[in-house]
Amino acid sequence: MTDSVSTSAPANDVFRARLKQSAEAIEEALCTYLPEQPAPNDASAPASLIAAMRHGALNGGKRIRPFLMIETARMLGCDAPGTLHAACALECVHCYSLIHDDLPAMDDDDLRRGKPTVHVAYGEAMAILAGDGLLTLAFDILARDDVHPDPAVRAELVLGLARNAGISGMVGGQVLDIEAEHRTRTEEEILNLQAMKTGALLRYACEAGAMLAKATKEDRAVVTRFGTIIGLAFQLADDLLDVTATSEQLGKTAGKDLTSEKATLVSLYGIDATRQKLFALIEEAEKLLAPYGKRAETLIATARFIAERKK
Amino acid sequence: MTDSVSTSAPANDVFRARLKQSAEAIEEALCTYLPEQPAPNDASAPASLIAAMRHGALNGGKRIRPFLMIETARMLGCDAPGTLHAACALECVHCYSLIHDDLPAMDDDDLRRGKPTVHVAYGEAMAILAGDGLLTLAFDILARDDVHPDPAVRAELVLGLARNAGISGMVGGQVLDIEAEHRTRTEEEILNLQAMKTGALLRYACEAGAMLAKATKEDRAVVTRFGTIIGLAFQLADDLLDVTATSEQLGKTAGKDLTSEKATLVSLYGIDATRQKLFALIEEAEKLLAPYGKRAETLIATARFIAERKK
Repeated sequence: MTDSVSTSAPANDVFRARLKQSAEAIEEALCTYLPEQPAPNDASAPASLIAAMRHGALNGGKRIRPFLMIETARMLGCDAPGTLHAACALECVHCYSLIHDDLPAMDDDDLRRGKPTVHVAYGEAMAILAGDGLLTLAFDILARDDVHPDPAVRAELVLGLARNAGISGMVGGQVLDIEAEHRTRTEEEILNLQAMKTGALLRYACEAGAMLAKATKEDRAVVTRFGTIIGLAFQLADDLLDVTATSEQLGKTAGKDLTSEKATLVSLYGIDATRQKLFALIEEAEKLLAPYGKRAETLIATARFIAERKK
Repeated sequence: MTDSVSTSAPANDVFRARLKQSAEAIEEALCTYLPEQPAPNDASAPASLIAAMRHGALNGGKRIRPFLMIETARMLGCDAPGTLHAACALECVHCYSLIHDDLPAMDDDDLRRGKPTVHVAYGEAMAILAGDGLLTLAFDILARDDVHPDPAVRAELVLGLARNAGISGMVGGQVLDIEAEHRTRTEEEILNLQAMKTGALLRYACEAGAMLAKATKEDRAVVTRFGTIIGLAFQLADDLLDVTATSEQLGKTAGKDLTSEKATLVSLYGIDATRQKLFALIEEAEKLLAPYGKRAETLIATARFIAERKK
């Protein structure tokens, strides 16, 4: 089964180079929104706040969500520079969620990608405010002219991000996760909370690509389904990594889900069955995008990458 | 000096009735966004999260910010139902900021308007997420069609709210406030942090009214200046109340600014000079809006109300 979704080594190298280049472009664009030296005439944000936000946002992440948005837009014919800005907005929301999730009152994590978390480095009050600042900045970025010339597209992007990041999406999922912490969860419960907590933003990444490209209803439905599959695959891969990888590989505490009694799909299905489900999802994603031919290559490679990633 | 800005008793009664009616309309509209019984087919937010958000948002506040937005739009000729929704979005941001400000890592307040704060009632994790949820909901509401038929206006409203609530506005001001907690502040520092922390949202309330009304550049400049004056007056009145009112009147701990060594403008100017500055601001606001004649009556009464309020 693994063979059917494995990628040839050269194609894989091309993909990884592209992902790396995209992550660098995102990091660079985020820097312009969070400048170390603010413009002298700027009614500016406090330097300490910017420093805490940079710590949380410029952390060498893979930038999978913005990559998905940019590549979905590209597959659907939109290669405008505004997609990079919209992608940055999404990454700001992801980074804010990590900062708040790591807080002592939440997951109480000291380490993130091998570095002290924001509240460890800057204190708890500053971490709360850095998260609030990044979430707010996301909508500031998304509403600007340079994201898309059509204000209706910008308003739609804002609405979609707010819905998927909010109480019926990511924030709601985090609440469900906390509430189910010390009790047995059913498969349905786990699927629902993961679809909200991590799935919603990944699906939005793809759907927003269709918004930016002003895609047809049909194309939009396809990439939104692709985004849903990506969300499921991402979570299965993450749960697998939590039981198979070491802390050193992850840059965070491994096995945390098990020790904190968070039942995952792996603990319900077992490792092998989880792997099989994961690869079935990738096959579905490939079939779904097959009609787009060569244009879909990068998105399909992204799906494989998510399934096969080692950290 | 007091005489020049005092309001006749009947006019005052009319104003207070109008403010109360508006607050009730805002509370009712907020309820529709945070329904106690979610629609059965809703991919819905967890009930516990909604409860915590309701605790923080449906608290019988005076709803001054939304009132300013609605009345500014009305003075400039816009009486559309969408203004109520836009006003709700602004109130969500105000309520989120109170929830996060009250957290143990921030101001550590147990009481707000005579009730336990959200983290006291629902725990710290839920309070963080309720705040995050309200902030996100604000942009969800603001991007919807029913706020304004023109998507360019909606995008402008989003951008303005994000700017004024974000790192160069409210969030940035909160950071400055924390950083200056245990040292002497200059007048300039206090004015700057208050302009960001509380002034920005009050000014936005008025500017957004102009956006909703698609006002001329000139009218927009006038009401934005009016909003700036309101921000300054609000803070002076607040600082005065902190030294003159009792905890019972305030529904929160009185004298907190002094005991926590937060230098305010009152401690720099003295009580009498602060009162004089406050009334001078209200006179400026009256002169500014005089050209609008009878249409400006409610906004002017709002300015007086802010200066004279007892809690």
